Amino acid sequence: GGDQAPAAVVASALQASRDGLATILVGDESRIVPLLREQGGAAASVQVLHTAEQIGMAEAPALALRRKPRASIMCATELVRRGEASGVVSAGNSGAVMGAAVLVLGTCGVERPAIATVMPTKQGHMVLLDVGANVDCAAARLVDFAWMGVAYARCALGLEVPRVAVLSIGTEAGKGNRVTREVSECLERSALNFVGSVEGTGLFDGVADVVVCDGFVGNVVLKVGEAVWEWVAGVVHELLVRDGELAPETREQVRRSLGLGDYREYGGALLLGVNGISVIAHGRSGPKAIAQAIALAATAADSGVVEDIARHFHSAARAGVTTT
Amino acid sequence: GGDQAPAAVVASALQASRDGLATILVGDESRIVPLLREQGGAAASVQVLHTAEQIGMAEAPALALRRKPRASIMCATELVRRGEASGVVSAGNSGAVMGAAVLVLGTCGVERPAIATVMPTKQGHMVLLDVGANVDCAAARLVDFAWMGVAYARCALGLEVPRVAVLSIGTEAGKGNRVTREVSECLERSALNFVGSVEGTGLFDGVADVVVCDGFVGNVVLKVGEAVWEWVAGVVHELLVRDGELAPETREQVRRSLGLGDYREYGGALLLGVNGISVIAHGRSGPKAIAQAIALAATAADSGVVEDIARHFHSAARAGVTTT
Repeated sequence: GGDQAPAAVVASALQASRDGLATILVGDESRIVPLLREQGGAAASVQVLHTAEQIGMAEAPALALRRKPRASIMCATELVRRGEASGVVSAGNSGAVMGAAVLVLGTCGVERPAIATVMPTKQGHMVLLDVGANVDCAAARLVDFAWMGVAYARCALGLEVPRVAVLSIGTEAGKGNRVTREVSECLERSALNFVGSVEGTGLFDGVADVVVCDGFVGNVVLKVGEAVWEWVAGVVHELLVRDGELAPETREQVRRSLGLGDYREYGGALLLGVNGISVIAHGRSGPKAIAQAIALAATAADSGVVEDIARHFHSAARAGVTTT
Repeated sequence: GGDQAPAAVVASALQASRDGLATILVGDESRIVPLLREQGGAAASVQVLHTAEQIGMAEAPALALRRKPRASIMCATELVRRGEASGVVSAGNSGAVMGAAVLVLGTCGVERPAIATVMPTKQGHMVLLDVGANVDCAAARLVDFAWMGVAYARCALGLEVPRVAVLSIGTEAGKGNRVTREVSECLERSALNFVGSVEGTGLFDGVADVVVCDGFVGNVVLKVGEAVWEWVAGVVHELLVRDGELAPETREQVRRSLGLGDYREYGGALLLGVNGISVIAHGRSGPKAIAQAIALAATAADSGVVEDIARHFHSAARAGVTTT
């Protein structure tokens, strides 16, 4: 799936193969196999699993998943459930990717899964969630997101005690909306390393390792950040390339700096709270971005993040307490 | 008020004076007068109105306004009510600026005022609102914002029939959260030129002249946009200045491009829905930004935007219909 499918997906699988990762391409083999041949021959580590049905970008996910139980995203996710794949990656309809994960893999004791993305900061990286799975969240959901984000930051960023913040519109207590105020109170009382609110202005300063927000706000943040970055990077790049005045090493530094916030460098977002690895790649992903998403799925599968999250929510349930 | 007050405010008044605008500085004259002398002597067009009380950045606005009826922001807003000033400008506690406007000037038939900011797009400019006055808005409030934003776009951007969009997380119908879906339905049926939803990704593409959202989302968007812009502009600027390889004209072009999204170039945000002009400048504003905010207040006062908005809401009230 995705705007550049199937060519970009096939190319990404071949790239992953060169990086030492085996992939199974799930979809219409009459379209996949010719592309595989064209792009350099079928590698032994790229298999094809044929499915005729697929879910389009404009389809309503819940309905489409019911009507098409053999859709490619369902079959691919089924491979994860059966242990035949370590994770599933898709740049297609993100609601369908999430729906398939919930239906096929099931949730691991959490009420709502969330989509988490690792974003660059001036100091390193942070985990931002939810970036689109849940709009209109109750405060308790954001507290769940905090626990899941911490597990992810431990596994993905190698941090022992990740710092958690709530995205809000002021750092003073009492600022924010109803939900952020309630979440802050809950996190204050929790066992997490809660550092308070972070504003948009300070989001990239590296003051927190995990930042929670509802999926509407997170999705807007992600996309506005991308849009601004692309705009300024585009303007500067055009000026510099057109003029060609820079020494090669300066040019390379500028290019690298501008690439810092480029979503194509990041491997998509991880769905947290389901019993398996499911990675949602950007709809606009090209081969490089999807290859990064495949690498993310492999790393996440090895990291134990799924087991970590399940352990937390199951022990919270056993203790008969809410995770708040 | 503001992080750089009182020096930056005094400097901005002298700048406004050179630009042909008369100002009244409201505050502690024992601090203002020496600064005026220091910065080049008292201009005839800069007056000082002494008040001893002020409201700090960390004070809760509603309580502070009740306790300090003679606070500088109250006195300054009072000048507008009495017609002795065309508008009030402050880089201080924005909740207090808004509270004073509502208390002293009153609202012009709208249930909740909103803070509107003019932002750059790839095509020109757009009005984004609300950027912080109202968190947790019902859909009807966002419809009011649309009407106010259209009046502002007509007056400030000179557009006859501004295009209105709702900021959401997908352009398809049914995407978004409860409020954005409801707002879209209302705007669809309204007399406004509604063009649908706009995503974060497309926010700066110039597809709409007025973009509405609740004050929590708008504030986050504004600040994340600023943060990303400052970050990348800073990185590029440092690389280019340090290396000093660019021809002067290219350097100037790069500098100008990077300044495109610089909040210091923009004159603060206009409070819409009150009976007078009230401009909220960025808390971090230096002299240039506050001078721009003064210019914005003067332009807005001449534009008739307050009267336009009052006319709409009063005629809606007379017709006995809601503005939706």
